[in-house]
Amino acid sequence: MSESSSFPTLKRVLLGQPIPSHLAHHERLSRVTGLAVLSSDALSSVAYATDFIIATLIVAGMQALDDAIPIAVVITTLLAIVTFSYRQTIFAYPTGGGAYRVAKENIGDNAGLVAAASLLVDYTLTVSVSISAGVLAIISAAPSLAPYRVEICLLFLALLTIGNLRGIRESGQIFAVPTYFFVVSIFMLIAIGFYRYATGGVVPVEAHPSTEIGTKPLTQLLLLTAFANGCTAMTGVEAVSDGVPAFRPPEAKNAAATLVTMAVLAICMFLGITFLEHAYRVLPSHAESGVSQLGRAILGSGTIPYYLVQAATTLILVLAANTAYADFPRLASIVSRDRYLPRQFMNQGDRLAFSNGILVLSSFAAILIVAFHGDTEALLPLYMIGVFVSFTLSQTGMVIHWRTKRSPGWQTSAFINGFGATVTGIVLVIVAVTKTLEGAWIVLVLIPLIIAVFKATRRHYDHVASQLTLRGYEPQKRVHNTVLIPIGGIQRAVVEALRYAETLSDDVRAVYVDVDPVATEQLRNGWQTWGGRTKLIVLDSPFRSVMEPLLEYIEQVQSERADDYVTVILPEFVPARWWQHLLHNQRALLIKGALLFRPNTVVTSVPFHLAK
Amino acid sequence: MSESSSFPTLKRVLLGQPIPSHLAHHERLSRVTGLAVLSSDALSSVAYATDFIIATLIVAGMQALDDAIPIAVVITTLLAIVTFSYRQTIFAYPTGGGAYRVAKENIGDNAGLVAAASLLVDYTLTVSVSISAGVLAIISAAPSLAPYRVEICLLFLALLTIGNLRGIRESGQIFAVPTYFFVVSIFMLIAIGFYRYATGGVVPVEAHPSTEIGTKPLTQLLLLTAFANGCTAMTGVEAVSDGVPAFRPPEAKNAAATLVTMAVLAICMFLGITFLEHAYRVLPSHAESGVSQLGRAILGSGTIPYYLVQAATTLILVLAANTAYADFPRLASIVSRDRYLPRQFMNQGDRLAFSNGILVLSSFAAILIVAFHGDTEALLPLYMIGVFVSFTLSQTGMVIHWRTKRSPGWQTSAFINGFGATVTGIVLVIVAVTKTLEGAWIVLVLIPLIIAVFKATRRHYDHVASQLTLRGYEPQKRVHNTVLIPIGGIQRAVVEALRYAETLSDDVRAVYVDVDPVATEQLRNGWQTWGGRTKLIVLDSPFRSVMEPLLEYIEQVQSERADDYVTVILPEFVPARWWQHLLHNQRALLIKGALLFRPNTVVTSVPFHLAK
Repeated sequence: MSESSSFPTLKRVLLGQPIPSHLAHHERLSRVTGLAVLSSDALSSVAYATDFIIATLIVAGMQALDDAIPIAVVITTLLAIVTFSYRQTIFAYPTGGGAYRVAKENIGDNAGLVAAASLLVDYTLTVSVSISAGVLAIISAAPSLAPYRVEICLLFLALLTIGNLRGIRESGQIFAVPTYFFVVSIFMLIAIGFYRYATGGVVPVEAHPSTEIGTKPLTQLLLLTAFANGCTAMTGVEAVSDGVPAFRPPEAKNAAATLVTMAVLAICMFLGITFLEHAYRVLPSHAESGVSQLGRAILGSGTIPYYLVQAATTLILVLAANTAYADFPRLASIVSRDRYLPRQFMNQGDRLAFSNGILVLSSFAAILIVAFHGDTEALLPLYMIGVFVSFTLSQTGMVIHWRTKRSPGWQTSAFINGFGATVTGIVLVIVAVTKTLEGAWIVLVLIPLIIAVFKATRRHYDHVASQLTLRGYEPQKRVHNTVLIPIGGIQRAVVEALRYAETLSDDVRAVYVDVDPVATEQLRNGWQTWGGRTKLIVLDSPFRSVMEPLLEYIEQVQSERADDYVTVILPEFVPARWWQHLLHNQRALLIKGALLFRPNTVVTSVPFHLAK
Repeated sequence: MSESSSFPTLKRVLLGQPIPSHLAHHERLSRVTGLAVLSSDALSSVAYATDFIIATLIVAGMQALDDAIPIAVVITTLLAIVTFSYRQTIFAYPTGGGAYRVAKENIGDNAGLVAAASLLVDYTLTVSVSISAGVLAIISAAPSLAPYRVEICLLFLALLTIGNLRGIRESGQIFAVPTYFFVVSIFMLIAIGFYRYATGGVVPVEAHPSTEIGTKPLTQLLLLTAFANGCTAMTGVEAVSDGVPAFRPPEAKNAAATLVTMAVLAICMFLGITFLEHAYRVLPSHAESGVSQLGRAILGSGTIPYYLVQAATTLILVLAANTAYADFPRLASIVSRDRYLPRQFMNQGDRLAFSNGILVLSSFAAILIVAFHGDTEALLPLYMIGVFVSFTLSQTGMVIHWRTKRSPGWQTSAFINGFGATVTGIVLVIVAVTKTLEGAWIVLVLIPLIIAVFKATRRHYDHVASQLTLRGYEPQKRVHNTVLIPIGGIQRAVVEALRYAETLSDDVRAVYVDVDPVATEQLRNGWQTWGGRTKLIVLDSPFRSVMEPLLEYIEQVQSERADDYVTVILPEFVPARWWQHLLHNQRALLIKGALLFRPNTVVTSVPFHLAK
């Protein structure tokens, strides 16, 4: 049936290939594939988090770098706390516990909207930051590409957009390759680095010429800023708890094990890299990442292992960006189902809704990349507000969840989530304080703006719903339909429209505006052959205008009967090539525009297909 | 009647105020107003033509400037020849002898198209060059405005666009003021300048610091280039012959007298300014025009007479730009009547067609101003190709006209036009040779491109006409109409669409795609109350898609009967505010798109007006 359809091409272009429901089960995740699919964002952030700590501390001189290690330890402790906090969410929401849902159900609609707005901003920044960091890994290895940083970023963005629009099959196998490749590369790097360190073979890295070593005092604020920047290591940790239903049964248990594994890996990698960057005196710059410098020092510049580490870093970062292409449209669809976003984002079985989400995400990510020149460090201040707002709301929602449910042992659960909420809340305040002036204000303005859009959309849909209700509705008694066909002469498209119109009503009238008596006479003659049972109405035009007499006549017809619809039929040319659209149907468009707001008036276009 | 209409606001916005035919006669031009209305382009060009000659010669040193005067004399001789040549066109074409018409009727369609393309380019450049030169007069008097040159140009362009869109009344009185103001100012300047010269009171102008005096040899080519640049003085001379029917009777005689007066004025002003700029050793620059420097030297910097000259120059140049706003849409309308341009440019009694021409003209003029930074001298190489192509074609056409007609004394007439064609043809070759590399190649590429657009448009309209012919046409015998209403549930807009549909056919079916059995059951219950005589068809959707089963059902209905139209009725929301459009009708748009190319299928939107 589907093969014999004449719509398949159009359908595929518009909608993509649909995925039947019964296939969905085959794609469930094991622990191994789940880790690969859901942890790229969290694991990849270790590729840049250490750099941000060092880049902040260096303004207070080389000595200040000693504080990088305690800061990293604090951050990994936080990461462990948040991991346990989210582990509870997994068991409480085995059908998926995204921050929007948890905050909305437990705290209230507004908290849910704040979480949703934060997450949408966050996903957009995940794309921009991950791609920028991935491209930094490329230009670290190939500095000659540095002038094309923004262009390469946009190229990756375009590939991700096209890939996702056409529908990348999110099979674990494909995702497993870069994720495990990255984990293995980084552990290899760390192992060799530690071996060198233990055997006294450390050769400090030469600082990049552009790196400035500052002489400012090491203030509390500077330490807090370094800490806040390092907290990027925590981004992405929520992904597993959002995706619980994607796991094989027992879903919650598998998801929880995956989450813990992910956290352990991230903590080890982050601590290892931070320790080694300090030991090798790495000073990351806008031109070369810390991991790349470490790779050169440990594995040797230009060696194959070095290039493998860089390739793995780029791959996992692009993969991390790709996860946002699943998250953003899914969240937009959920929010849209609650009527806070336009229907176009709501998934109704077609791929179309996701396409809209993908295009919106790509557009905003592209704006950010261009505006911030693809510089990861410049994007950073914007990044973390959204992440920590949703962390805090989600954990707070869980506390309320436990208090409401009061199931056995609820106090322990509430305590763990409360502790998580408290520490992420504190980090949020630190991030807001240290980052607002550096650019986070953009996000602090954007989130309320997005919420305003949510509310306006919802208000409008509610208004519409109240206007559509059938309660107390008395349909008008209209039984007659006067069909009018404005014509500019008689030709094949007009005759076809007449024949169509005559199937609709017993009162069909062709309306012609007389601007040239000779042409009018010709028309009257032709009417005897082609007019059929359609009456010909000829209107005078004192001002040589065609539109005005026509509109006045329609008005007159409508005033004649109270039980009447007026249907205006316009022949519409459907050209064979796109540019030919410019040459047709302009007057039809005008008439449609003029009649759009008239009650009980319907405009119908009868297509006339041009062969060439 | 018109006052009681409910369309007046919309009509006025869309169409502007129509001008009744019987009023048109009152606006006929006398010789005095005719000169003012039709000569601003020709007269204003003396404000910059001399500057271009001097700017070309100066690369060969101060000595070379002595050649400016003989060059100017040659140019004025040419201007006199062309004037007499066009004087003949006036008598031969008393209903208006534009280059398009003369070339088309006498040489052939292709020559007409070359003339039309050249003129459209020429009018666009008239706008850019005149505005740029007018703004140069302003920044000459107020150098502090120089950094905003492009912005001021665009401001004037915007004012002209808005003024013309709203319909500037082209009454002679308004035009008379700047034109005669300019003529009087320049003659005053020349008179005082000559008096000073005669009484030995000449103080040479100090060269602008940015002016470079070259040391190149004074070659033939340089002299030719200077001559070609000076020929800008001849632009606009054809305007009177295009506008013959606008004159009071006897039209041709009045027009001819006006043309000769204009030429005499232009020649005197051009020679006077050239002589004085040479005498006062004026070296025009990008920052200050020659007339401005002359004004400072003769009238005194910062004096009121000086500012009056600058104001008059700006005004007449803006006026010259404004004439293109009448010429471009008029020519586009004539070409469109011959089906070489889209119908939208064809004037059919409404102002709309002219609005399209105005918008196209403004857009291209804006591109030129921005691309060439509002620099008159930089735009110059592009300007003259179009002018001299149309001059040459028009004069050549006249020669053929006389030879075909062979009325008494035709040899003299043919000789005069032939001489005109020859000299303008020679100038065209000189311009093409000296200017191609400097930018004229853009125009040499553009003109064939525009002709290609003309031909493609005509070819398409011819194809359409052949598909629309009624000769040998047998209309299909279709007598039945199956009306389908895809619905997603039952609400007021759906019920209104059902009631409308039931007036169209005895076979009305609502089509619903079952994606949720509970919702389907609810719908079936509601149908008993609201369904009326419309059948409810429920379709299964194995892939959870809504579109696919719908499209397949339509296909199935069409395959059932051969004498059937299928009308698909969609409720369409008409929102109260523009942004609400984004929230509605997306699925309707998709269905329309999917059905657009299906034969015998008509899609009708029944509007549902939202109150808020």
